[in-house]
Amino acid sequence: MARLVQKFGGTSVADVDRIKIVAQRVKREVDAGHEVIVVVSAMSGTTNQLVAWTNQTAELADPKEYDVVVASGEQVTAGLLAIALQAIGVPARSWMGWQIPLKTDEAHGKARIQNIDLAEITTATARGEVAVVAGFQGATEGRRVTTLGRGGSDTSAVALAAAFDAERCDIFTDVDGVYTTDPRIVARARKLDKITYEEMLEMASQGAKVLQTRSVEMAMNHRVRVQVLSSFVDRPGTMVVDEDEILEKQVVSGIAYSRDEAKITVAGVLDRPGVAAGIFGPLADAGINVDMIVQNVSRDGKATDMTFTVGKADITRAVKVLEANRDHVKYETILSSADVVKISVIGVGMRSHAGVAQKMFKTLADKGINIQVISTSEIKVAVLVGEEYLELALRALHSAYGLDAVEAAE
Amino acid sequence: MARLVQKFGGTSVADVDRIKIVAQRVKREVDAGHEVIVVVSAMSGTTNQLVAWTNQTAELADPKEYDVVVASGEQVTAGLLAIALQAIGVPARSWMGWQIPLKTDEAHGKARIQNIDLAEITTATARGEVAVVAGFQGATEGRRVTTLGRGGSDTSAVALAAAFDAERCDIFTDVDGVYTTDPRIVARARKLDKITYEEMLEMASQGAKVLQTRSVEMAMNHRVRVQVLSSFVDRPGTMVVDEDEILEKQVVSGIAYSRDEAKITVAGVLDRPGVAAGIFGPLADAGINVDMIVQNVSRDGKATDMTFTVGKADITRAVKVLEANRDHVKYETILSSADVVKISVIGVGMRSHAGVAQKMFKTLADKGINIQVISTSEIKVAVLVGEEYLELALRALHSAYGLDAVEAAE
Repeated sequence: MARLVQKFGGTSVADVDRIKIVAQRVKREVDAGHEVIVVVSAMSGTTNQLVAWTNQTAELADPKEYDVVVASGEQVTAGLLAIALQAIGVPARSWMGWQIPLKTDEAHGKARIQNIDLAEITTATARGEVAVVAGFQGATEGRRVTTLGRGGSDTSAVALAAAFDAERCDIFTDVDGVYTTDPRIVARARKLDKITYEEMLEMASQGAKVLQTRSVEMAMNHRVRVQVLSSFVDRPGTMVVDEDEILEKQVVSGIAYSRDEAKITVAGVLDRPGVAAGIFGPLADAGINVDMIVQNVSRDGKATDMTFTVGKADITRAVKVLEANRDHVKYETILSSADVVKISVIGVGMRSHAGVAQKMFKTLADKGINIQVISTSEIKVAVLVGEEYLELALRALHSAYGLDAVEAAE
Repeated sequence: MARLVQKFGGTSVADVDRIKIVAQRVKREVDAGHEVIVVVSAMSGTTNQLVAWTNQTAELADPKEYDVVVASGEQVTAGLLAIALQAIGVPARSWMGWQIPLKTDEAHGKARIQNIDLAEITTATARGEVAVVAGFQGATEGRRVTTLGRGGSDTSAVALAAAFDAERCDIFTDVDGVYTTDPRIVARARKLDKITYEEMLEMASQGAKVLQTRSVEMAMNHRVRVQVLSSFVDRPGTMVVDEDEILEKQVVSGIAYSRDEAKITVAGVLDRPGVAAGIFGPLADAGINVDMIVQNVSRDGKATDMTFTVGKADITRAVKVLEANRDHVKYETILSSADVVKISVIGVGMRSHAGVAQKMFKTLADKGINIQVISTSEIKVAVLVGEEYLELALRALHSAYGLDAVEAAE
């Protein structure tokens, strides 16, 4: 007997028929004697509809009321899954965030979990009742409804798994695991049996959409064993685990990419202390996240160029912020471009292996791909290239690092 | 300055554009200095969709989970209306049943309100904030979500008006008031300026769908002045008030009808004590409501016929229950018929006027309409007739009691 948390995303609970299939999936674990908490997302499409309504009602909706509206989607799925479980003889009840309670701070729309009181739920699961929790939502101390941000159901699931002391947290999604890279682009991409938290974190934050970044962080901090798997096929997925659990570490485990990048160059800024703060301070104040940053060596000891990336959605606003601060930060001109992609090579083995970055640069150079920006971390090398090179670069790097699946080889 | 409760039904909040119009309507009362609680239903169609999903998930859904699912509709409208009010400069926040809290018993699906704590809401309305309450829902002592039954938002509104000590409870719907009879059938039907609680109660329970019966009962018990009016046109509706407020009482105020009737005759039962209990006991046990009951004089001192009406949806089940009890209640045969309608003439003036029933019988006889069953109360005479006579009977009675509008007269 073990304690399990199983999370089912939007496509897994797209309609009543899919919800019934999920109920059967959960029943297998109950029949095996496990205590189960299930976390559900809204039926696919629901959240988009609810968000659209709030946008139609007001250009800038009160986040407190936005949360009330969008949290209703998960409530519906939780009730329906509880009904579906009962219909096949599995005792079950739904739990809204406020009923648990799952307490969050007051940052509506992207609230952070502060405390989960599992007293009532553990009593229920101990007597064999499945707890069906509405994901993505919580409540403040003042009993207002909050949501955890897009993809927040993953975070709900991992947080509940930590509080429940669960043996495993299964994240059911529409892919059957974490791949070495996007299989829609690289046919020889392989599903990974295991991946470390650190790698998964880099994969998620570098653009792989399989898990929400915050949920991986939380899994890492609380050492929650997370499995990513498909609710559409019946086979093991990818386990996200501690580094100790992986015996043969790959130098490179995966290659992520993100199309959601735009490049801005502030050209001809004075090369003197404080200039970076002058540029990035106002951007931070405007809530614009800056990712990669490169400062060139000044050409004449006086002026230099500052290049950085922001999310594609922020590019117009970022340029406006910079123009509004031109008096403060003197510069010649601003260049911006949205036709770029970021490609990241990720692997904990990099720590002990030299030459990983060099292999990346050489592989891209051999294909005639120009690198626009480079950034690195302990277990990642990321480059910005023209977006027309994405597929070419991904396939070349996948081969170069020996990630190609054998069975797909010719 | 007054305290008002305004309730907007499904068609009044059908989509975002309608919700914005409602916000403008509420703003007028706020601008006039009133403290306002708004009660909203789900956007029209939403509740039906949610109910359909629960039915598709299980033939017999757990009422506790059914309530979780269907209560989500009002949550969405409440959030959206709060956003719409804020967008036009009116401070507002949404309130779910559990947040108020509006405490109910545990009769899920048709819960009864036990207690409303308005401490937080009155603090909010006192500082000029509109409280947008999700109608139709409450919560049990054990923090489970409950719903008040179909049309329950009317009950929410009246209960809140009573607790709020509101000067008036406006029920906005898709008709502009209470009519002497259905204007779709009788062109000369007139809108009533005022109607007594007792009459409204009879109208509602005899088939007029403008207000939920329970909400009228509650308004009568707590002397809440209810106004029924349209959110689509801007003119006064019908006030439902105490009898004292109506100076010139009409003998007959309105004529209601219900197509939801079916007639059952248990023929040839022994005319002896206990036979009625033998028939109606098992029906009550099966949760079948019996409305009109007639027992004929026995033909030979031994056998008699018992005729009664049940809801159309219950007719097959009612006959089965009677057949199952044939050993217990001996009878010759059971006759049932669903092609009947009930027509009710209603008015508090009846108490002091003789001849109201006689006029009804004569009017119907003159048109050649056979009366199948009769039942009366202090302020009502109801008859069951063949459904093909509905329009003819309504028009004839409407004229006979002097209810025809003058302006529509030729």
